[in-house]
Amino acid sequence: MPDLSQETFDSLLYVREQMILDSIAVAQNALKDSLQATQELMIKTRTDLDNSNTSIAQTTFMSNNTWMMIATAFVFIMHLGFATLESGLTQAKNTTNILFKNSIIPAIGMITHALIGFSLMYPGFTFGTSMDFIGWNGFGLLVPDTAETSAYNPGMTYWTDFLFQAMFAATAATIVSGVVAERIKLLPFLLFCIVFTAFIYTIIGSWKWGGGWLNTLGFRDFAGSTLVHSVGGWAALAGVLLLGPRHGKYDKGRIKPIQGHNMTSAVIGTFMLWLGWFGFNGGSVLSANPGDVSRVLVTTCLSASGGAIAAAITIFIVNKSFDLTMVLNGILGGLVGITAGADKMGVTDSILIGLVSGVIVVFAVLLFDRIKVDDPVGALSVHLVCGIWGTMAVGILGKAAGMNQFLLQLLGIGACGAAAFILSFIVFALLKYTIGIRVDLEDEIYGLDNKEHYMEAYPNFMTK
Amino acid sequence: MPDLSQETFDSLLYVREQMILDSIAVAQNALKDSLQATQELMIKTRTDLDNSNTSIAQTTFMSNNTWMMIATAFVFIMHLGFATLESGLTQAKNTTNILFKNSIIPAIGMITHALIGFSLMYPGFTFGTSMDFIGWNGFGLLVPDTAETSAYNPGMTYWTDFLFQAMFAATAATIVSGVVAERIKLLPFLLFCIVFTAFIYTIIGSWKWGGGWLNTLGFRDFAGSTLVHSVGGWAALAGVLLLGPRHGKYDKGRIKPIQGHNMTSAVIGTFMLWLGWFGFNGGSVLSANPGDVSRVLVTTCLSASGGAIAAAITIFIVNKSFDLTMVLNGILGGLVGITAGADKMGVTDSILIGLVSGVIVVFAVLLFDRIKVDDPVGALSVHLVCGIWGTMAVGILGKAAGMNQFLLQLLGIGACGAAAFILSFIVFALLKYTIGIRVDLEDEIYGLDNKEHYMEAYPNFMTK
Amino acid sequence: MPDLSQETFDSLLYVREQMILDSIAVAQNALKDSLQATQELMIKTRTDLDNSNTSIAQTTFMSNNTWMMIATAFVFIMHLGFATLESGLTQAKNTTNILFKNSIIPAIGMITHALIGFSLMYPGFTFGTSMDFIGWNGFGLLVPDTAETSAYNPGMTYWTDFLFQAMFAATAATIVSGVVAERIKLLPFLLFCIVFTAFIYTIIGSWKWGGGWLNTLGFRDFAGSTLVHSVGGWAALAGVLLLGPRHGKYDKGRIKPIQGHNMTSAVIGTFMLWLGWFGFNGGSVLSANPGDVSRVLVTTCLSASGGAIAAAITIFIVNKSFDLTMVLNGILGGLVGITAGADKMGVTDSILIGLVSGVIVVFAVLLFDRIKVDDPVGALSVHLVCGIWGTMAVGILGKAAGMNQFLLQLLGIGACGAAAFILSFIVFALLKYTIGIRVDLEDEIYGLDNKEHYMEAYPNFMTK
Repeated sequence: MPDLSQETFDSLLYVREQMILDSIAVAQNALKDSLQATQELMIKTRTDLDNSNTSIAQTTFMSNNTWMMIATAFVFIMHLGFATLESGLTQAKNTTNILFKNSIIPAIGMITHALIGFSLMYPGFTFGTSMDFIGWNGFGLLVPDTAETSAYNPGMTYWTDFLFQAMFAATAATIVSGVVAERIKLLPFLLFCIVFTAFIYTIIGSWKWGGGWLNTLGFRDFAGSTLVHSVGGWAALAGVLLLGPRHGKYDKGRIKPIQGHNMTSAVIGTFMLWLGWFGFNGGSVLSANPGDVSRVLVTTCLSASGGAIAAAITIFIVNKSFDLTMVLNGILGGLVGITAGADKMGVTDSILIGLVSGVIVVFAVLLFDRIKVDDPVGALSVHLVCGIWGTMAVGILGKAAGMNQFLLQLLGIGACGAAAFILSFIVFALLKYTIGIRVDLEDEIYGLDNKEHYMEAYPNFMTK
Repeated sequence: MPDLSQETFDSLLYVREQMILDSIAVAQNALKDSLQATQELMIKTRTDLDNSNTSIAQTTFMSNNTWMMIATAFVFIMHLGFATLESGLTQAKNTTNILFKNSIIPAIGMITHALIGFSLMYPGFTFGTSMDFIGWNGFGLLVPDTAETSAYNPGMTYWTDFLFQAMFAATAATIVSGVVAERIKLLPFLLFCIVFTAFIYTIIGSWKWGGGWLNTLGFRDFAGSTLVHSVGGWAALAGVLLLGPRHGKYDKGRIKPIQGHNMTSAVIGTFMLWLGWFGFNGGSVLSANPGDVSRVLVTTCLSASGGAIAAAITIFIVNKSFDLTMVLNGILGGLVGITAGADKMGVTDSILIGLVSGVIVVFAVLLFDRIKVDDPVGALSVHLVCGIWGTMAVGILGKAAGMNQFLLQLLGIGACGAAAFILSFIVFALLKYTIGIRVDLEDEIYGLDNKEHYMEAYPNFMTK
Repeated sequence: MPDLSQETFDSLLYVREQMILDSIAVAQNALKDSLQATQELMIKTRTDLDNSNTSIAQTTFMSNNTWMMIATAFVFIMHLGFATLESGLTQAKNTTNILFKNSIIPAIGMITHALIGFSLMYPGFTFGTSMDFIGWNGFGLLVPDTAETSAYNPGMTYWTDFLFQAMFAATAATIVSGVVAERIKLLPFLLFCIVFTAFIYTIIGSWKWGGGWLNTLGFRDFAGSTLVHSVGGWAALAGVLLLGPRHGKYDKGRIKPIQGHNMTSAVIGTFMLWLGWFGFNGGSVLSANPGDVSRVLVTTCLSASGGAIAAAITIFIVNKSFDLTMVLNGILGGLVGITAGADKMGVTDSILIGLVSGVIVVFAVLLFDRIKVDDPVGALSVHLVCGIWGTMAVGILGKAAGMNQFLLQLLGIGACGAAAFILSFIVFALLKYTIGIRVDLEDEIYGLDNKEHYMEAYPNFMTK
């Protein structure tokens, strides 16, 4: 066998090299193809996962939005609650009048909120910019393109948010209705409601919920002990000071009790309001977050329960009677009291807030009568006094308690209260000295139903 | 060192080749194993993703179904609304009678819908085939295997769909109840209700919602301005024409107002109906689609609000009074008016539909009295007249507006109206000329409660 | 050209080998890098998928919890139902008294459930261990760390569960309220309620729903035909036996009918209870499972409907009258009857259970009057008798039927009934022979409202 020449070696080696490289290339290409298929599947999987995540986000959004719509329905039914509570606690001769007011207030609240209120109260939410102190930036009528998607808000659609907030706006006006009942003229009252729901409630509300200066400072008011309830209460106080007490209520230094005509109606009203509070507080989480919403429902119900029991015991000690209307006031006081801090309280905190509400609501009712502020349904005691107490309680009890927070709470109470009282006083005074706000004495004695409505509420029954 | 022989070269090269190939094979096998592990993980990931997607679909279905169940509960409570509205707007001496009718109608509606109505109205949905014009294809009692899954419908279970639709069926009969109140005999009325809810309402409904000929043509009726409200109204008109007005209502050319006995009850009824409409319209999306449902709730509430305000102003201009019952009629007229197009309207459209409803409901009430059609509760004006207006409005306002659509709307109104009126007239006539439909004059004057029920509604109170 | 030396060959081969190995290494490293990138993406994908699954689980939990919160709201409104039904079916002179009781009972129920009831009834659920027969293991006030997550329960948060169960606890006490109405003293009644809701109801309930011995044996009571309704009924029977009938009810061997004062109120109550049952039964699924909950709602509503129709026909046959209160009792009897097996029945089963409930509720009302057990509102017939029937029906009809199950049902009915009756009898007897449980005859005749509350329910109306 001859020795290998360099040339032969080169050519032989080349052939073998190519064989090796080819066989390796085949194996590598197989691997490469397999890897590429895997990578393509990976890309598809990533796309599928993105689609799944989109589906999850949509379902989460849908589930949040569903809760918020139901919360809206619950807040809506509070208007029936106010209607039946307020008419139940007043005289039969004024029932049609009160029912008329409470039936048309939600309509006024929703229309004004659509025309202007919503954009006044939530300027940044509506069009992306804020005008700070007042915050008016367009009309609610102009629905943005993103109204039906989570781009507006991960917790609900623009539509849902509008409706939820519109229901709130109307409730503040209804608080006023009860305090001035049985002697205010209908037309000026309705004019006040328009101004109040469209401007006063919404401008003050924008300070906190619209992201305004009180919000920036750190004032806390979860669902509106101040922004809804005490603001409504201050407006009512302005009205009642200009209106005076009902005829005969404080004759010759004596306080004459004027009992409500229908306790069944009052109880229906109270329970409808309590049911409504499931949405009022539960919806103020602004999503269906299970821990947050369910905690809020528990603290809300426990405070209402504490209020009922404390009011029952307090009035029994004071008067030696089992007083149904005080139990109802206690329930409502407990509900108003927990509203500012329903998200920050524990079990014992909320029972305590309710118990205190139940005690103070009783003494507030007695006090307002002592100083001759005639509030036929106890709404000042429930909404104004317990609203203040509940807002203060956020600085005293629960997760947000602290001296700094407490001072912030006082600031918020004071600022909102001063604005609500002064602005409402101006509007009521303008109405008083132009078209007048009080019905004639004869009409008041005879009853507003016959005089303003030509319609008795119970024409088939014999009344005293 | 000797030169390399070919033989040596070959063997040497072979060894080196094997070493190279082995080392490459080791590296490639490592890669192959790693890739295979990755591919197996990919298969597992795809399976996991499929499972996730199944979970998402189940949760989406659950969330949709939850909304539909709640919508069903809201529609259910409309029956309390009808009961209290209707009895509130009539005389105390007939209250037990009206409450009896409205308490048993939901029971009749649900049982007939289970026995036959549901399968008559939704033939294709129940068993997968349609019988066109009438569409009877089995009994609702036979629940398909897929009843509890999304295979039936992605928006809700078969059970939910049945119950939602059963609640609707009963509402149509309740509309009739109000118009013929205070002088119809109970037994023939209940017999009419059975025939009406089981056959007349469902056969007409199948033309549109059951996928029948009106649906094929393109007639639009989102939640039933025509299929529920004007169909109920036409049936009521047939009844009232055969029944005649209440004794003393149109004596000597004068229209005697017969006021309702309980405005509190009427207001409770109206608010319960409004609350019910959250489900009636909101549930008619047939899923919890956030954009669609929340838009529907806003258009529904704005139309109701517009109706309240327009009716209040209209009657004030006509009569110089603040008329509570007209506000209630305005609310209900607005609700009926928006029902056909709640899904296709914007903010201004829905306020406009409400305003028009509020105006026409007032004039319709006055007109029906002028032509001596005695409708104690104004249900013809609310359900028939505003039902027609709302169905027409779909062709005039909103996203579906157009001349072609308008003509289709007229066709639907006419066809459903003619069928409802003629069939109901035949049934009422058969009852009239066999067992009689009107109570004795003496019983009517004395009140139906004592005569048909031996039970006054308010036995402890003195009545006029 | 010279021949190749071994040395030259080695060096040449080495160079070529390195070139091959290098080029292969480059290709392999590229593959390896690519694979590693794919693997890293896979790891990320797995993490993303885990996050997606977490999101799905959270949304599912949120959706379940939302339904349970709404169910809780529905059960809450049953308290308004009890208040208006019970006061509507009794005399106007005792209305304030009844409304007082029913307004404060939910407060008592919720506070006692927070203090002790919840942990007594659900020992294992609260702190992970059970004390068997009684099962007291801490106080509800101590909220575990996992209270707001699905770690507590996949269907709802701890807060939701507490509130749902607290609403149930209070309903059992309300059943007692109706039976002893119009002659029981308020204070001992409230004391009984505290003991009953805190201890008697919860200890018996723990036997089944708390995972106790009746649950272990296989006794079935889906939503409480026995645990809530017949337990409440037995307690009421104990009370009424110690209390005696109302003055004048069974004079000289004649049964004097004492009609309810407000049928509108009674109908509002019945519909509120029916609405509440959407949550009472629908929520007892303890999740929003679409098939299960919607089936339960259908069986619940069909049974109520069957009850209404059967009761109407039965009393018409017996008395030749269309008796509204019997229709209401029929609805409620049907609701109580389906409650034990609402999850196991089909369409025909549930209609049948309702029909039987409607028949027996009528005869039970007649029978209790015959044996001089004076139950002003028919609550014994509705809750005790139909509760027993409904619990038995689980062994007779539907998916769980069978002789063994039937015997288990009898055991559960007997054990719970004996415990409820004996314990309640002891408490009522202690109260009777210490502070007394019956009002003075004069007060009973004059009415409890004036004597215990100094507050008439309808002071503006003239009463007989």
